[in-house]
Amino acid sequence: MSIVVVGSIAFDSVATPSGRAENILGGAATYFALAASYFTEVRVVAVVGEDFTAEYEDVLRKRKIDTRGVEHAKGKTFRWGGQYLDNLNEAKTEFTDLNVFERFQPRIPDEYQDSEFLFLANIQPSLQAAVRLEMEGVRLTGGDTMNYWIKDFRGELLETLKLVNILLINDAETKMLAGERALPRAAKKVLAMGPQALVVKHGEYGATIFFREGAFGIGSHPFRAPALPIDEVKDPTGAGDSFAGGFMGYLASQPELNREVLKRALFYGGVMGSFAVERFGTERLQDLKREDIEGRFHVFRELTHLE
Amino acid sequence: MSIVVVGSIAFDSVATPSGRAENILGGAATYFALAASYFTEVRVVAVVGEDFTAEYEDVLRKRKIDTRGVEHAKGKTFRWGGQYLDNLNEAKTEFTDLNVFERFQPRIPDEYQDSEFLFLANIQPSLQAAVRLEMEGVRLTGGDTMNYWIKDFRGELLETLKLVNILLINDAETKMLAGERALPRAAKKVLAMGPQALVVKHGEYGATIFFREGAFGIGSHPFRAPALPIDEVKDPTGAGDSFAGGFMGYLASQPELNREVLKRALFYGGVMGSFAVERFGTERLQDLKREDIEGRFHVFRELTHLE
Repeated sequence: MSIVVVGSIAFDSVATPSGRAENILGGAATYFALAASYFTEVRVVAVVGEDFTAEYEDVLRKRKIDTRGVEHAKGKTFRWGGQYLDNLNEAKTEFTDLNVFERFQPRIPDEYQDSEFLFLANIQPSLQAAVRLEMEGVRLTGGDTMNYWIKDFRGELLETLKLVNILLINDAETKMLAGERALPRAAKKVLAMGPQALVVKHGEYGATIFFREGAFGIGSHPFRAPALPIDEVKDPTGAGDSFAGGFMGYLASQPELNREVLKRALFYGGVMGSFAVERFGTERLQDLKREDIEGRFHVFRELTHLE
Repeated sequence: MSIVVVGSIAFDSVATPSGRAENILGGAATYFALAASYFTEVRVVAVVGEDFTAEYEDVLRKRKIDTRGVEHAKGKTFRWGGQYLDNLNEAKTEFTDLNVFERFQPRIPDEYQDSEFLFLANIQPSLQAAVRLEMEGVRLTGGDTMNYWIKDFRGELLETLKLVNILLINDAETKMLAGERALPRAAKKVLAMGPQALVVKHGEYGATIFFREGAFGIGSHPFRAPALPIDEVKDPTGAGDSFAGGFMGYLASQPELNREVLKRALFYGGVMGSFAVERFGTERLQDLKREDIEGRFHVFRELTHLE
């Protein structure tokens, strides 16, 4: 089944302890789409400027990603600059030029309306909600958000969360959204806001999925997929979006959604996130082989498997 | 088989978001001994002052811990004060009164010489080395250390590491000791310093064991035991020492040491650490039942188990 992703396409300038890269293809929708494309058909809704030339669109097209929903607007593409020199786990933003992204009004092509899966990457919550309501046939919606919306657009965000089936955020965002220091309690509060499941991303330590009682199966036991940090994190940008792409892409490829499938999806999320950070930008996600993905899935699985 | 632990017994004064406690029984040897006592016979080598009255020694004795190696010296017991008000993952030390611990010269009772397992808790590396050399019959030695020794006693510490089979330290200590930012590389460097295995403790995210090629089995694949953060961390003090107690105690209880046993030990370490933080001081470790321990082992195992 196909999945629609709505979010940013950007040009990033990044500095990490491994080096620098200027104006490379990035953005949440890009990372998500590339990661998900190894599992299912992906359709993108985003906006780009005149500087987004055919060579960039080809990066997506080569992975058979549908770009009919990518609007080409007058002006420049969203640009972001940041560095991870002191801390690989958290970007220090150096500049944000929203450019055409500032007036982004997602338009869903008619041809996308038969998609049953939707991912709302990190954009303004009211836009996320509008997209979800426009796509009537959607069976499962995943969503992301960030501290900015949690802090200053709380009311709007809470309305949007009622429309999201699975929320994927990190530890700090979970605790901030819930106003709770302990993760299990924070997760319970977030689940009461709407989502049936909450995926909390722990960076190099993997991710945990919390279920609302009875959602996708029996009980409410959480599940954790660990990940082993890799030898060199060249560029952490897009790790979370790649995680979401692997997670949602795997879900969209499965005939049935149950706890076991969601657990496996959590592992695939970790796998795609771990590939993303091995090179600058989206490079590593552009030409993986299915064997690479299955091989790392196996490593991650063995990592915590007791006989 | 019995295990000897050498380390501190202390009175701690702790402030956490859940409350305060003054002059409660603590110290690395205490937490370690209590946690290990659920798996095997434990023998303590430590020093206490005149304020360490029979009621305190009874806490250990009730768990059938051998205290013949606890020296009663003139003066006061080691006292430590710290708080976790801003950050549950790292103590801010408010005071350290070494008292009788300042001149601690570990003396191993003759009756302890038949112990095959030894744990060198965090004390000066030269003292750790002296203890290890004195105990000729020891089959497996575990050890801990801290940033202070890594930074200012590096030469001494490197000598000691040659005598330690399994080193148990946290992420920051591993990276500091190796001078490496990436954990897998740091682990490889630490293993080259002597230990056959390195356990890196990740706090609420569990722990990873790295093996030197061929040690305890085939290959060098690491293994990670995850842990789910519990609802309320009342007092993080002693979590790492309780982890070490569960880990080493389980090892000492097993007829054979192989990879599978070490993996299970890592889970038992996480289990004992998670109990320790549920109440202030050592309270929770004083009267657990074997069913409590097995129950949580099962939860931790299920947490990452794919069908």
